[in-house]
Amino acid sequence: MAKQITPRSQDYSKWYHDIVLKAGLADYAPVKGCMIIKPYGYAIWEKMQRYLDDRFKETGHQNAYFPLFIPESFMKKEAEHVEGFAPECAVVTHGGGKKLEEPLMIRPTSETIIWDTYRKWIQSYRDLPLLINQWANVVRWEMRTRLFLRTTEFLWQEGHTAHASEEDARKETMMILEIYRQFAEDIMAVPVIPGLKSENEKFAGAVDTYSIEAMMQDGDALQAGTSHYLGQNFAKAFDVKFQDENSELNYVYATSWGVSTRLIGALVMAHSDDQGLIMPPKLAPIEVVIVPIYRDEDSRSRVLEVANRLVAEYPNKLSIKLDDRDEVRPGWKFNEWEMKGVPLRIEIGPRDVDAGKVTAARRDTGEKRDLPIESAVTQALALLDEIQQGIYDKAHAFRKENTHRIDKWDDFKEFFKNGSGFVEAHWNGKTESELEIQNQTKATVRNIPLSAEEEDGKCILTGEPSSKRVIFSKSY
Amino acid sequence: MAKQITPRSQDYSKWYHDIVLKAGLADYAPVKGCMIIKPYGYAIWEKMQRYLDDRFKETGHQNAYFPLFIPESFMKKEAEHVEGFAPECAVVTHGGGKKLEEPLMIRPTSETIIWDTYRKWIQSYRDLPLLINQWANVVRWEMRTRLFLRTTEFLWQEGHTAHASEEDARKETMMILEIYRQFAEDIMAVPVIPGLKSENEKFAGAVDTYSIEAMMQDGDALQAGTSHYLGQNFAKAFDVKFQDENSELNYVYATSWGVSTRLIGALVMAHSDDQGLIMPPKLAPIEVVIVPIYRDEDSRSRVLEVANRLVAEYPNKLSIKLDDRDEVRPGWKFNEWEMKGVPLRIEIGPRDVDAGKVTAARRDTGEKRDLPIESAVTQALALLDEIQQGIYDKAHAFRKENTHRIDKWDDFKEFFKNGSGFVEAHWNGKTESELEIQNQTKATVRNIPLSAEEEDGKCILTGEPSSKRVIFSKSY
Repeated sequence: MAKQITPRSQDYSKWYHDIVLKAGLADYAPVKGCMIIKPYGYAIWEKMQRYLDDRFKETGHQNAYFPLFIPESFMKKEAEHVEGFAPECAVVTHGGGKKLEEPLMIRPTSETIIWDTYRKWIQSYRDLPLLINQWANVVRWEMRTRLFLRTTEFLWQEGHTAHASEEDARKETMMILEIYRQFAEDIMAVPVIPGLKSENEKFAGAVDTYSIEAMMQDGDALQAGTSHYLGQNFAKAFDVKFQDENSELNYVYATSWGVSTRLIGALVMAHSDDQGLIMPPKLAPIEVVIVPIYRDEDSRSRVLEVANRLVAEYPNKLSIKLDDRDEVRPGWKFNEWEMKGVPLRIEIGPRDVDAGKVTAARRDTGEKRDLPIESAVTQALALLDEIQQGIYDKAHAFRKENTHRIDKWDDFKEFFKNGSGFVEAHWNGKTESELEIQNQTKATVRNIPLSAEEEDGKCILTGEPSSKRVIFSKSY
Repeated sequence: MAKQITPRSQDYSKWYHDIVLKAGLADYAPVKGCMIIKPYGYAIWEKMQRYLDDRFKETGHQNAYFPLFIPESFMKKEAEHVEGFAPECAVVTHGGGKKLEEPLMIRPTSETIIWDTYRKWIQSYRDLPLLINQWANVVRWEMRTRLFLRTTEFLWQEGHTAHASEEDARKETMMILEIYRQFAEDIMAVPVIPGLKSENEKFAGAVDTYSIEAMMQDGDALQAGTSHYLGQNFAKAFDVKFQDENSELNYVYATSWGVSTRLIGALVMAHSDDQGLIMPPKLAPIEVVIVPIYRDEDSRSRVLEVANRLVAEYPNKLSIKLDDRDEVRPGWKFNEWEMKGVPLRIEIGPRDVDAGKVTAARRDTGEKRDLPIESAVTQALALLDEIQQGIYDKAHAFRKENTHRIDKWDDFKEFFKNGSGFVEAHWNGKTESELEIQNQTKATVRNIPLSAEEEDGKCILTGEPSSKRVIFSKSY
């Protein structure tokens, strides 16, 4: 088999890239830092899009499309924003064979062009809330890239909303964070911690950034989605005012929020094993693969008759695959579909047919089970639910095992010296301390969990008083 | 009403832009030639995408995503292609604050980067056909732009397929053309002529380009979709060979095909009138709008009770809109929804409720009809089918009226001097003559219709023998 992958224990990063490449999720592009999303990887993205898009629309958002190109001058209007993003921009200097008068930035995110537009769209409180999302590509010039996790160009959705009050905008910020949490946990089967980012890690231009943080199998954290309360920063930078019900002019309150193709990287790293990808059924492009096993023409037709019957009974025809290729052997097929993480494999041989059953093999646990042919589809669908839950439970248990409460600085340093994981520790809330901790341990504050309880404690570094534990971890 | 639009008869181009802007389809962007697709316009694009994407998948295609950036050197590998597209490219010269070693082109179309990739993906006949589509933004630096019809950045889908034989690739080319034809006629309600483009008008790098051509209300043609048979041009330029069943190496045969947000422009220009947009029901973001009419609280509650009942009965909740705003009057609402082209308006007043009926008004014909409340939803759905057909029939009759057979050069010149429309005429098939005809009349060969019958004739310009009539027209 050419398809063997590097074991996780040997080289985690190589294991990750082996899976991405060999499961057919993505490929390197000729331009450094870019990637080609292959059909199997893109099919996962489409399932993510469909779910999230439905949720955004249910909650009153509409899609729109803003230009790829942003005049250089726009980027400079919000002070923190330009500082954060300008150094990462790709710049177009020539078009149509001529040098441009003003260079154009390729959007690294669209706050500036969108708020420049909202100035024209918003006059009165009747125009609010304005709830818009876009699905788009963005470009951030990155030095060190990894397929899906950090690429120069990536695909994402970015929501940009405008509200009449801080209260409304903050409600929106938290509602979207909750949609992201539900998506991560219920659909991706990845448990996450929703919380507030530190000042040092927040979005350039936000008042508050909230994130969901997931633990990967190497114990490091991955930020899987962010929702920003932007206050009036962009409204002031782009002069977006509205007339309120008392005819007074006021700056608009804003939010922005996004998730990206990075989530596919998170999915790979959260669940997969040394045989390849493990897909949660709710995002699997193929939920069930049927591998027929036969030696001669007679057994072939009997086996395929049963296989075709199951396909016909299956509710979503595009999600079940009958692998009836003759040029490769069943064992080869098993390996290939394991590599691609198909949640459930159904094997059908002539003896199975004689016994009125098929064999179902779970990708996540390897467990095999006989299913009577008559109820095979119903039972397979129930098994998929079990697998979805099982994958989540496993990831949740892993996170629990690798999360520790630490109260002494020496223990903290020792922990990150030897290993990884989440540490719940007290912190004085100051950027200075956070940077010093990062400097000594490579761990940063991932977020201040929404669920953090009030507790008298002392900052792990300085001993200053602290009222809440935060999550420290190394991160992607 | 601030929303009045310029009459078609007065200034066709201004009429078009008025509708695009005032119906809320798009807005100008700060960067010249770019556009902002507003939520209502984007909702139409989403409906187009959903239909086409389903058809592509039904016919075995998968979506993928290739990078925005193409190394300058790639563009140069196919001689005709570089000549056609290089002058239109936007060029990135700086990234991450540094000058790039090799400038990057922003894709004007993705043949080059895709065929560079296919070299790695295709080895054997077993890898063929490779049927891939992508939904993406592309950039072509345009001097004269118009919202939707010609913009520097636009959204589109581009299919790129690889086949083992010319026959297979040609079959694919024609199958996609037929999908486009069906989409234009059955969904957009725009009659089109499928045919072969002339050598002069074909895609840069294609062996043969096929198009569907639609007539706009000013009589000019709009190319609404193209499907290209690329032969082995790109396979040779990028060295993409496969081992056939006899173990011989052979270059792969290719197709590419696309439709873009330009279709939204076509939709506007094909159907709309001086009151605004007219949407075919199958693409309408809102199929039915209900405008309640009342004077007091009592009539309000009786009217809204019926309105809400109809909404509840309506099969697709997102496609029916109850306009229960109190701050604007019914007449204002009528105008607004007419401007936005909603196919059917239902008016409900207290006297209607007393009489057990509602009033339905068709956007396309203005015709009003009483519908009994009990069967209003069923009848409204039937009316939408009638409207869809009616809009198509009207456009078809218009095209027929404005299509002429002309056999004399003087008549031909005279025709295009005074007016517009399609002219079916003979042509010797030479680029030289086509350019001379264009030079004298501004009309070009739109295509050689697939349905053109063999007929002995003489070239309209030169008198040389010709066996088929082609379509001449001025075009967008």
